[in-house]
Amino acid sequence: MPKIVDHDKQKQIVAEAAIRVIRRTGLDRATVRNIAKEAGLSVGSLRHYFSTQDELFAFCMNIFRERTETRVESMELGEEVLPALKRLLLQFLPVDEDRKMEMEVWLSFSTKSLMRPELKRIGEDMYAGMRSASLFAVHKLMEAKLAKKDLDADLEAETLHALLDGLAIHQLLYPGTMPAERSELLLDRHLRSLCE
Amino acid sequence: MPKIVDHDKQKQIVAEAAIRVIRRTGLDRATVRNIAKEAGLSVGSLRHYFSTQDELFAFCMNIFRERTETRVESMELGEEVLPALKRLLLQFLPVDEDRKMEMEVWLSFSTKSLMRPELKRIGEDMYAGMRSASLFAVHKLMEAKLAKKDLDADLEAETLHALLDGLAIHQLLYPGTMPAERSELLLDRHLRSLCE
Repeated sequence: MPKIVDHDKQKQIVAEAAIRVIRRTGLDRATVRNIAKEAGLSVGSLRHYFSTQDELFAFCMNIFRERTETRVESMELGEEVLPALKRLLLQFLPVDEDRKMEMEVWLSFSTKSLMRPELKRIGEDMYAGMRSASLFAVHKLMEAKLAKKDLDADLEAETLHALLDGLAIHQLLYPGTMPAERSELLLDRHLRSLCE
Repeated sequence: MPKIVDHDKQKQIVAEAAIRVIRRTGLDRATVRNIAKEAGLSVGSLRHYFSTQDELFAFCMNIFRERTETRVESMELGEEVLPALKRLLLQFLPVDEDRKMEMEVWLSFSTKSLMRPELKRIGEDMYAGMRSASLFAVHKLMEAKLAKKDLDADLEAETLHALLDGLAIHQLLYPGTMPAERSELLLDRHLRSLCE
């Protein structure tokens, strides 16, 4: 009698194995063979769940996006708007080891998509999510009457989003000159600069 | 009699061939074999000029850095400080095809260095150059008495630098939502926000 396997659960297990391999070796060396080995499966079995490596990576990126969404949705904004928004936006910086790894994979994947436009769609959801969070933050400042008058919400959200990604990359690549506390300070100052 | 070959000139030719291959195929597929073929050399001859692929890539990154420095140094700042600084800082955004390619390679190389710390040094010169240019811009605004009082030059330079890199990446990855004119507008607004 064949074993009854929960297909979705198994996909999740494979993706977690992939994330461990990517973390350890980088995206370039996270081959189907290495990931199958890590998951304790044959290459053939792995192909049963993900027919291509891109499918598998797309699934991993979705896991990251869902994790970020869960973190953001489970946040209590609380009374104090400015500190709350800062906490929210810090979710998009590599403030701990998990987020550092997620962002490294996101950066590797995005860079790969420069040469492989068919991969671009996968990063787009994350990009759209960060843009929404940035716009949400600007709108919250406006609603709370903290924002400067005549602020252009869209332009400020785009600026904030670019600043966050720039800080994330500097933190990932040059933690010596851009440690977490420094980028937190810069984010804090930028938010205050939008206020009266 | 052996051919007399200008070693430095030949290195430059090989690097130019490498840049063409990287542009066409991406960093991942820019193998020594492919680059040798593009340069019309044997793999053995190429190894005479660059003993490893990393050495060759480092040389290419240096070419990009020199090009950027030359562009920046040859600029006439002129009378009007704000437009001049904007022109200066636009050198760090992918405003034309050459710069787009340079930044794509810079991004690929930086991402690769996440997994290969020995490559990190190569990106550091570019990073330091952009940081200096950002600091130069903030100082110029202060000297011209355009800047807000009590501006913290270092913090503002770090913010400007992160914003520039964030905009560059958004432009490279999502030119549909962040076209060149839009990031130019955002840069312009940010510079103005530093002024009285």
